[in-house]
Amino acid sequence: MRLSDGVEWSLHSLWLLGVLGGDRAIPAQRLAEFYGLPDAYLAKILKLLVKAGLLTSSSGPRGGFRLARAADAITVLDVVNAVEGHQPMFRCSEIRQRGPEPLGPTACRTPCGIAQVMLRAERGWRDELAATTLADLIAHAPAASNARAKRWERHSFGQRRAA
Amino acid sequence: MRLSDGVEWSLHSLWLLGVLGGDRAIPAQRLAEFYGLPDAYLAKILKLLVKAGLLTSSSGPRGGFRLARAADAITVLDVVNAVEGHQPMFRCSEIRQRGPEPLGPTACRTPCGIAQVMLRAERGWRDELAATTLADLIAHAPAASNARAKRWERHSFGQRRAA
Repeated sequence: MRLSDGVEWSLHSLWLLGVLGGDRAIPAQRLAEFYGLPDAYLAKILKLLVKAGLLTSSSGPRGGFRLARAADAITVLDVVNAVEGHQPMFRCSEIRQRGPEPLGPTACRTPCGIAQVMLRAERGWRDELAATTLADLIAHAPAASNARAKRWERHSFGQRRAA
Repeated sequence: MRLSDGVEWSLHSLWLLGVLGGDRAIPAQRLAEFYGLPDAYLAKILKLLVKAGLLTSSSGPRGGFRLARAADAITVLDVVNAVEGHQPMFRCSEIRQRGPEPLGPTACRTPCGIAQVMLRAERGWRDELAATTLADLIAHAPAASNARAKRWERHSFGQRRAA
């Protein structure tokens, strides 16, 4: 069981868009270049983020992707859900109700102990991911990370319009 | 991202072996019958549990699967690891070190904020799974679950040798 690479790529791409301040749209190709990623695959992933309302996209010579909302209104969980979907990791198929001695419906009103522990662990995982926002990631990134993003922006796009 | 059905099947099969007390080996086919599962696929999953040291298997007319250790020495995490492997859900590929402005090795001595939150959430998930043992699942199962297991055992194997 593994999260797709798209989760890592999305979080980093959103981080970059957040650090650069949101007044500039950045094409998928440029984001892919910054992180050394395959641009066609990254573009597909970014579309999932648009669909989930985390990014907006625009076309044309100044087109590209921007954050669709403030960095403190985007959680890590939002990103994981956008890329992986909202399906739970553990899906109980109620096998206790099968076979020659099925458990009756009265006894099955609550999830069995197995489903309970799996769901509790998963809830904790989601809660932890929901507790960190893109703004937190930006605030706690080392200065060297921010500096490289700004250097690349200057080199790729020239001076920022609103410095 | 989804856990395989084998996790659910394994936990229920181990629970059944634990409830029936461990003095009897049960063939994969019989376990599959009890839960209405495909027996060839269940047998493959049970082999993973043998490989992980959670079950032992024996052949012959009285052969089958037994718990390899006490129910309080088998955690839910042991079962998830046996079926899914020990690989982490999130694997950081250090994309901050790629591209035209790679972050230098000094700044990369610690995981980035993105990897940190993903790993923290995953650690919490594993800790929660490790906190529940098969003995806990057996102790907290409703009486109706235990009764159906015993009924099926009597019907399938006759009276238990050591009651």
